[in-house]
Amino acid sequence: MADPTLDIVAMGDAIVDVIANCDDDFIRRHGLPKGSMQLLTPSQADELYAAMGVAREMSGGSAANSMAGIAAMGRSSAFIGQVAEDQLGLIFEHDMHALGVRFDTPPLPMGNGSGPPTGRCLILVTPDGQRTMNTSPGASHELSSEALDRDLIASASILFLEGYLFGPEKPRAAMMEAIKIAHAANRKVAFTLSESVCIAGRKESFGQMIDSGGVDLLFCNQDEAFQLTGRTDLKNALTELSIKVPTLVVTKGAEGAIAIENGERISIPAAPVGEVVDTTGAGDLFAAGFLAARCKGASLERCLWTGAIAAAEVIQHYGARPIADLKELVKL
Amino acid sequence: MADPTLDIVAMGDAIVDVIANCDDDFIRRHGLPKGSMQLLTPSQADELYAAMGVAREMSGGSAANSMAGIAAMGRSSAFIGQVAEDQLGLIFEHDMHALGVRFDTPPLPMGNGSGPPTGRCLILVTPDGQRTMNTSPGASHELSSEALDRDLIASASILFLEGYLFGPEKPRAAMMEAIKIAHAANRKVAFTLSESVCIAGRKESFGQMIDSGGVDLLFCNQDEAFQLTGRTDLKNALTELSIKVPTLVVTKGAEGAIAIENGERISIPAAPVGEVVDTTGAGDLFAAGFLAARCKGASLERCLWTGAIAAAEVIQHYGARPIADLKELVKL
Repeated sequence: MADPTLDIVAMGDAIVDVIANCDDDFIRRHGLPKGSMQLLTPSQADELYAAMGVAREMSGGSAANSMAGIAAMGRSSAFIGQVAEDQLGLIFEHDMHALGVRFDTPPLPMGNGSGPPTGRCLILVTPDGQRTMNTSPGASHELSSEALDRDLIASASILFLEGYLFGPEKPRAAMMEAIKIAHAANRKVAFTLSESVCIAGRKESFGQMIDSGGVDLLFCNQDEAFQLTGRTDLKNALTELSIKVPTLVVTKGAEGAIAIENGERISIPAAPVGEVVDTTGAGDLFAAGFLAARCKGASLERCLWTGAIAAAEVIQHYGARPIADLKELVKL
Repeated sequence: MADPTLDIVAMGDAIVDVIANCDDDFIRRHGLPKGSMQLLTPSQADELYAAMGVAREMSGGSAANSMAGIAAMGRSSAFIGQVAEDQLGLIFEHDMHALGVRFDTPPLPMGNGSGPPTGRCLILVTPDGQRTMNTSPGASHELSSEALDRDLIASASILFLEGYLFGPEKPRAAMMEAIKIAHAANRKVAFTLSESVCIAGRKESFGQMIDSGGVDLLFCNQDEAFQLTGRTDLKNALTELSIKVPTLVVTKGAEGAIAIENGERISIPAAPVGEVVDTTGAGDLFAAGFLAARCKGASLERCLWTGAIAAAEVIQHYGARPIADLKELVKL
C-alpha cells in the first residue's frame, strides 16, 4: 500500500453562507429553534431571506470550513462537494482554491434552469453570538458516488465525513462508497456528527455503520451524543459511544472538550476568548485543529488543545473560517 | 408643483463587492494603482479574482452605499441601478430592500447566456486599510433611460448621481435625462465625482453639464478636484469649481472636509477614529451623512459633521456600508 500523499480529504456540503444579524424576537417570530440547523425548501429559503436583514456572503459548509482551517494550519487538504455552475458555485470554488485546498468536483450544469442552484445557508446571528442556521442545500445534496475521485480518497491519510451529508440518500451512498475506498487503502475515517444524523431512520443506519467499523474517529457535541444514544447522562452516553469507535471526541462549548481513545480519557477546558461574536464554525474549526495535530502525530491532549485554539479564533469574528494566522496560533 | 414625498433618489452602479485582504506586493505585482478604481474586462476580472485570496461578498456600489447610509440615518431613499437576473443581482436587491431602500429597476434578463451578469467590484484591502477597487461593471453599465421611473425621480427632494456611471454612454444619457426630470419638478441635483469623470473626453462633457446648471451640489475629493480643474493648488481648484456649482463639498481624507456655498466657506477636521480597517465607502458615507442632514434643513457645518461621523464609522470595519447604529451616532 502506497504512503499517503495528502493529509486529509473531506466530503461535505458545498454551500455559501449568507450571514445577517437579528434579534431574538426575529428567531421566535419565524419559529426557528435557536442555535440549531434546519433544512429549508427553496421557497422557505426565499421567504426567510426576504425577511432577514442586510447580509454578507462567505463560503461555508461544515467540512469545507474544517478544510479551510486545516489549510490555514499548513496541512494539505482536499474537498469533495457538489456546487452548481452558477455565481455562488464560482465563489465557493474560488475560496477553496485561494486557501490552497484542492477542490475539483465538477459543478452540476444548470441547463434549462432545471438543476438546483448552489446551496445557501441563511445564518442568523443573535446579539449573544449564537447562530441559527437555515440551509437550502440545493446542488450540495446531489453529490453522487460518480463524482468521487477514488485516487484522491485513497491518497489521503484521513477521510473526513460531514454528518449533514448523511441525511439525503445520494450523498449518503457516496459517503459509504468513500469509506470503502479509504479502508481498502488502509486509511482512517473520521466522521463529524450532526443533529440530522440523530433523527429516527438515519440513527439506525448510522449505528450500523459504526458497528461495522466504518468510523475510526467520531466528533460530536454533547447534545448530539445525547440524541444519538438516547441517554441523558453524559458519562453513560460517552461510554456507550466510546465502545463503538476507536477515538471519540466530544465538544462541550464553553465547557471544553473530552477525548476517549484506547481507554485513555482526557478533558480540557475551552481556550480563553475575548468577546464571542459569532459561534458559527466553532465545531468545524475544533475538528480542523484536532485533525491537523493528529496528522503531525501529536498527543491526544495536544490534539484537543489545537482544536480548542482554532475554535476560539473563529468565534471571535463573523464567519465560519479563520481570519487570524492559525499556523502561528497553534504552532504545530 | 407637488411637495416631494421622498428624501433622496440615487442613480449608480448596482454591484456586489468581493473583498479580500492582500499585501502591498500583490498590488504591485498586478500593476494596480493603489487606492484607485480601475475598470476591468470580464476576462481581466476572472484573472484577478483567481489570483486573489479568500473573499467575503457584500452589496456595494458608490451611490448605493450612500443610500444604505441615508436609510440607516432614518431618511427615505430609493435607488435606480441595473442588475442582471442572477444570484448576485438577487443579493443586491435583497440588501437594498432589507435596508428599506426602494429599489425596483427591473433586472436584465439572462436568456441564452447573452446578457452581462450583475457587476462585481474586486476590492483589495492592504494592511494599512487602503482599498484598491477593480470593477467589472457587467449589467450595471447597461442602465438606460428606459429603465428610469420618472415619477419616482420627480418625487424626491434630491436626485443623487454617481460619477462612475458618467463614463459609459448609455447610463450617462440616462443621468442627463434624470437631471431634466428632476429640474422640471423643481428638485435639486447632487453629483459625486469620480476619477472616471476626470479623464479626457468625459471631463469636457461634465464641464458642459455643470456650466449649464445641471449640478446643484457637487461632492468630490481633493485629487478629483485637481484632476478635473487641472490645477495643482487646492485653493485655486476650489475657487474654480465653486463658481460653477451652488454648493461644493470636498473631502480630504484624514484632513477633514470643506464646503463652499453662497460665499460661505467652512472647514472641519475628520471625525476621530480608532483603527482604520478598510477605507472602502468613506466618501459614499460622507455624502450620505451630508445629504441626510441637508434633508433635515441642518446648517452647512452640521451637514459636514454628519458626513464626517458617518465616514468615520464605515472605515473602522470591513465593507462599505454602516454596521453601527448611524441614527444614534449622528443624532439628526
